Amino acid sequence: MSSSPPRARPDAPRDASPGVQRVVVVGADAAGMSAAHQALRTARARGHGIALTVFERTSHTSYSACGIPYWVAGDVDGGDRLVARTAAQHRAAGIDLRLGVEVIGLDTGARTVTAHDLRTGERTTHAYDDVVLATGAAPRVPPWAVAEDGGPVGGVRAVKDLDDGAAWLAMLGDVTDRRSPSGVALGPDGRPVRGVVVGGGYIGLEMAEAFARRGLETTLVTRHEVMGSLDPDLGARVRAALGEAGVTVRVGVDVDTLSTGADGRVTCVSAGDERFEGHLVALGLGVRPRTGLAAAAGLPLGAHGGLLPDDRQRVADGVWAAGDCCEHLERHGGLRVYVPLGTHANKQGRVAGENLAAGRTDDAMVRFGGVLGTAITRFVANGVHLEIARTGPTTEQARASGREVASLVTESTTASGYMPEAAPIAVKVLADPATRRLVGVQIVGGPGAGKRIDTAAAALWLGADLDDVAGMDLSYAPPFSPVWDPVQIACRRLADRLGRPGS
Amino acid sequence: MSSSPPRARPDAPRDASPGVQRVVVVGADAAGMSAAHQALRTARARGHGIALTVFERTSHTSYSACGIPYWVAGDVDGGDRLVARTAAQHRAAGIDLRLGVEVIGLDTGARTVTAHDLRTGERTTHAYDDVVLATGAAPRVPPWAVAEDGGPVGGVRAVKDLDDGAAWLAMLGDVTDRRSPSGVALGPDGRPVRGVVVGGGYIGLEMAEAFARRGLETTLVTRHEVMGSLDPDLGARVRAALGEAGVTVRVGVDVDTLSTGADGRVTCVSAGDERFEGHLVALGLGVRPRTGLAAAAGLPLGAHGGLLPDDRQRVADGVWAAGDCCEHLERHGGLRVYVPLGTHANKQGRVAGENLAAGRTDDAMVRFGGVLGTAITRFVANGVHLEIARTGPTTEQARASGREVASLVTESTTASGYMPEAAPIAVKVLADPATRRLVGVQIVGGPGAGKRIDTAAAALWLGADLDDVAGMDLSYAPPFSPVWDPVQIACRRLADRLGRPGS
Repeated sequence: MSSSPPRARPDAPRDASPGVQRVVVVGADAAGMSAAHQALRTARARGHGIALTVFERTSHTSYSACGIPYWVAGDVDGGDRLVARTAAQHRAAGIDLRLGVEVIGLDTGARTVTAHDLRTGERTTHAYDDVVLATGAAPRVPPWAVAEDGGPVGGVRAVKDLDDGAAWLAMLGDVTDRRSPSGVALGPDGRPVRGVVVGGGYIGLEMAEAFARRGLETTLVTRHEVMGSLDPDLGARVRAALGEAGVTVRVGVDVDTLSTGADGRVTCVSAGDERFEGHLVALGLGVRPRTGLAAAAGLPLGAHGGLLPDDRQRVADGVWAAGDCCEHLERHGGLRVYVPLGTHANKQGRVAGENLAAGRTDDAMVRFGGVLGTAITRFVANGVHLEIARTGPTTEQARASGREVASLVTESTTASGYMPEAAPIAVKVLADPATRRLVGVQIVGGPGAGKRIDTAAAALWLGADLDDVAGMDLSYAPPFSPVWDPVQIACRRLADRLGRPGS
Repeated sequence: MSSSPPRARPDAPRDASPGVQRVVVVGADAAGMSAAHQALRTARARGHGIALTVFERTSHTSYSACGIPYWVAGDVDGGDRLVARTAAQHRAAGIDLRLGVEVIGLDTGARTVTAHDLRTGERTTHAYDDVVLATGAAPRVPPWAVAEDGGPVGGVRAVKDLDDGAAWLAMLGDVTDRRSPSGVALGPDGRPVRGVVVGGGYIGLEMAEAFARRGLETTLVTRHEVMGSLDPDLGARVRAALGEAGVTVRVGVDVDTLSTGADGRVTCVSAGDERFEGHLVALGLGVRPRTGLAAAAGLPLGAHGGLLPDDRQRVADGVWAAGDCCEHLERHGGLRVYVPLGTHANKQGRVAGENLAAGRTDDAMVRFGGVLGTAITRFVANGVHLEIARTGPTTEQARASGREVASLVTESTTASGYMPEAAPIAVKVLADPATRRLVGVQIVGGPGAGKRIDTAAAALWLGADLDDVAGMDLSYAPPFSPVWDPVQIACRRLADRLGRPGS
């Protein structure tokens, strides 16, 4: 099999010049636009013609979904600021970008897509030589959060796209009655007083920060421990910090009902007999891959519902996929995981764009190196500043994939202890006790703690063992680190505990 | 050869029990005390007897020399806070620590040291099975900075040990005349108004920060570009930031004279006809290894004047060395370099202590992994916050060792551009154009920029190439990074510029 462009195809449309590679990209966010621009660059560098058409069902392109909680919190001036590249910029680069057009059909045999213009209702068919599926993800919205008409309940919303962000800003300011019909007191300016966050993961934590910084009495409810992407002992530290900042945290809560007032707006959510009152309810329950189009086309999906590209980002002949609609292969461990993050979307988009346009043989194609599960966030409000990061699987994830792990939590400081910058940092290191190979690292600490995860991620990416990290020449000066960096001392101590090889 | 303890030796002193390994450590700072404690731990774990005697000519032990500029700046409450472990703590651990005792003779054949008690004048001879030389470094003091009596000129001082720190604090407050005899105006409270820093390296920059934060009119003079441990283009950025903070910077200045007032205190330093007035003059001209004892004992020294331990920290049979009295082997490149840093001192001390006490064969000994030349500092004063870091050689250093390098400076931000935390960061990446292997990285940027060097250091430590770093799963969230981390995007761009292998 070769995807060597340009291809001569009998069903070439009249508007494509002979010898020009026709590429259709479905979805105009990070993955799709990275693929489109990389394909353009690669084709131009190789001197062959390419025609790039990108279909996007919304009116938005290339925006930072991760920035929305900070927009809601008040850190970002407006939704426009979250747009990395505008439609006009994409078009100026030579991309035929069609906003408000949803791709509703994919025929991988005929190599066509069917597009539906959401404004005009027009349906058109477009032939392609290569198609990139970058359809992203949709937030999980539980049944109790859906109104009888199928729309969102007033005051209840996920945090996924720019429309969500704008809606959150409106909701934070738009409550004009001093008392809601349900009798729940609003603030003297008619703004909401209480917010409930459902879900204790990244978005949940970030929306708890946004609510707390907006001055809301904030309750976070979550089914399991806060930050389930960490081991529970580190998650408990995050929970404690939320409490210090005045956020009420309830774990082990499975919300099953929502109550509304006479105006149809939310007044509380409930789990069994327990009620959590809120004028606003943020849904931070994760996302699932948008793969309806791919499924209808008969493309295989994985256990998480995502597409299953190989490490060249190819799912079938002439069909590529990238970003949040895909499952990812762990770099180590070999499991398919679902890690919807912009970092992967950007990298995978580049890989797809490069490979579809470069015309290389399979062996010479560029590859996506897999995921470690690296992630970072923070909670900063009411005098609390906590940074949270991880790389590699948790203990539970590692054991679920049959890996034995030894682990140790090391307490240290982010700077030399005598410096005013010094803040506590806890580093949990997971390693294979037999090979001493690093398996994962989790960090919870004060300002300057979180980004240290990249030292661990680099080491883990390259297959380092504990002794490698313990020996590394990392940077030291009193405002930045103790003389042994916390990540390093944590690895050294676990290495010491495991005993020296051969001794 | 084997250093397998315990040894039975005919010249065992009467005070050592038979079968007890006698270890003498010369110098009680980071390297020496790391060696002593590690030797104790290792001997105890192996169940053999060890007697550890540590001689230290000063009254200080285990202090952070790197913290002194921050003590001078006012960040640290007192010199005691810089002491990681007190003499009493070392003694409680079972170490016979002799402060105020200088080792003035070493006989590696007879395996004895001669110690001189600086208070009593008593000289004693001590037999050892293993000796650790951890004699540290001495600041470079140019002839013009030495008074006729051989002592320091009033107001002029290096920044090396706790006595220097205390002297600096006194000098910053102890000028009681409103006008110095030379006619240079002092402040209304009789404190110094002008400070000159001679030297533009780490200590120079840190003392410029201390002076500026203390409110002194500060001039920094340096022979070459500021921060000679960076490439000149990045050094120039540091110089510009100093200027923004109101520090007068003069490069290309080789101070050759010092003037004093009638009270013998400094009034200015001069380079040819050019005068730089100051009530205080900080010497930041680097350090040289203290190896008089080793040289007199006939131990070989390197081009930098340092001891030349192998990677087990051994310099001769029964003689070990660690820390600032040693030259270091580059991890890559193979050159002997002189990098006097606490990080290496601690690691080398542990290696020496472990090896001398573990009784392993050469092959099974633990090893010091070499140095990359990783370093970090900052300049924070008068509204400027600049972080500076490097790993690997500079372009000049790499070329001097016969390595070809390609390089690129990439401008980015420390956080997503729309976040209030976003500050500029420049990352210069050096790589071998043929192998694409990472050679070095230099960073100059705002808050959060510097510690990113550890990502590069980890990659460099493990022999990564540009594509490895470009593909890594590094952490991203808007307050912490753009979606491509600045170190990663810098490597990716240089990789792109070099062209893909095989294309």
